[in-house]
Amino acid sequence: MGTTQLESVPEPKYWHLRTVLSEALDSEFTVGEILPNERDLAARFGVARATLRQALEQLELEGRLQRRRGVGTTVAPPRVGVAVGTEQHAWPGAEDDVWQPTDCAPAVPPASVADALESGRDESVHIVRRSRVTHGQPVAAELLYIPQSSVPDLSGIDAPSGAARARAVLRELHRLELEGQESAVELGSARADDAKELDRLPGAPVLVVTTRYIAEGRTAALSVATYRADTCRLTFGDSGGVEIHEDPERRAS
Amino acid sequence: MGTTQLESVPEPKYWHLRTVLSEALDSEFTVGEILPNERDLAARFGVARATLRQALEQLELEGRLQRRRGVGTTVAPPRVGVAVGTEQHAWPGAEDDVWQPTDCAPAVPPASVADALESGRDESVHIVRRSRVTHGQPVAAELLYIPQSSVPDLSGIDAPSGAARARAVLRELHRLELEGQESAVELGSARADDAKELDRLPGAPVLVVTTRYIAEGRTAALSVATYRADTCRLTFGDSGGVEIHEDPERRAS
Repeated sequence: MGTTQLESVPEPKYWHLRTVLSEALDSEFTVGEILPNERDLAARFGVARATLRQALEQLELEGRLQRRRGVGTTVAPPRVGVAVGTEQHAWPGAEDDVWQPTDCAPAVPPASVADALESGRDESVHIVRRSRVTHGQPVAAELLYIPQSSVPDLSGIDAPSGAARARAVLRELHRLELEGQESAVELGSARADDAKELDRLPGAPVLVVTTRYIAEGRTAALSVATYRADTCRLTFGDSGGVEIHEDPERRAS
Repeated sequence: MGTTQLESVPEPKYWHLRTVLSEALDSEFTVGEILPNERDLAARFGVARATLRQALEQLELEGRLQRRRGVGTTVAPPRVGVAVGTEQHAWPGAEDDVWQPTDCAPAVPPASVADALESGRDESVHIVRRSRVTHGQPVAAELLYIPQSSVPDLSGIDAPSGAARARAVLRELHRLELEGQESAVELGSARADDAKELDRLPGAPVLVVTTRYIAEGRTAALSVATYRADTCRLTFGDSGGVEIHEDPERRAS
């Protein structure tokens, strides 16, 4: 990466620098390589440290760079496509589910979740925690809220807690007939517990996928899944069965 | 918002502050209200400006706050659910399409787009620009890449450019039989032209939805749509027809 003074341009300086840096990443760096420190980079491009940091933040948002504590800023590998099926109805924990239950405990959910579930605001629900691992890396953490009324015949005797309890709750849930599901994706920041599970700092950008499972005309379960935004792209395939493994957007931007 | 000194906690200070601020937003502020300036806020909570800024950034990521030039930091309205259909196949520009074409021009696409389209790297394709408006606000900008081979009989005579040209290209595209489509969602940063259209600064966080339209066993068109991450949640409904207008995650986090 040579010494390149930025000329005056109509777009913001950090944005122009981001473009120059992006091209340098393509042509001069390899995945996993550590970037020079901020002071050196700022000097080479003739910009203030604040401008440099803004440009690095853009590239981090785009998944081009990763900042890792104790390591520095490295060139990120391409994002991993993670399938988020919406076209087929299936209860959580159905056969071939990629999520692994890790825990289950009764607790009063946030007020907004209680409202969505039409459970009382002080009413305890089953909260199942699950995790999703792709290529050996944790990519997502999920909280699944299941009101007592969705699993009325659940027995508390043989699996009072933990993953076994989670499986027992899901088995009971499967007795209901699933009528539909609705998902939404939005940007969020990682809660402390999710961040720990995903090996990120609290507040890191995440993609939050909320799914409502509809049975008997109401929301029978609500899933809030938190995906690492730095390493994941969420894919929504259809029944066509066309598989394309390339990642055009990542390099197109 | 009273004077609240933060006690020492095991989680990072900015994250704890984010939680305290989030509760204050719920209880003491209304949508559109302008927050006190950073210096005052930092003093009230007994934190450094840098810590305060980190907490404000989290809340901005979560869509709770908006930073607007010349106005300051305001309390954001709830995000708008924007439907992104994946379960029904339809060409862009089909009846009831919510996107409006604004322009069309031939150009050589980025190399990665050319590769995905299996067009040559120096080959010009039709680039249709479209925009999406919800409740009077621009929420998304799209570039739609259509290779010449997908619209071989297109005439250049009566609509050489602009929205009319875009409609002519899409009409020709509809002659192909759509065999399937695949979408992916990922975090990105707004390019300068998209940012302008979306009334954001270049580099603002956006949700990038890439869609491949498959016909004749190949990618016949590629759409790269950029949604405002601050104001949008992307919804993926199904045929169940259940409509729920609440926004649980926004307040659940």
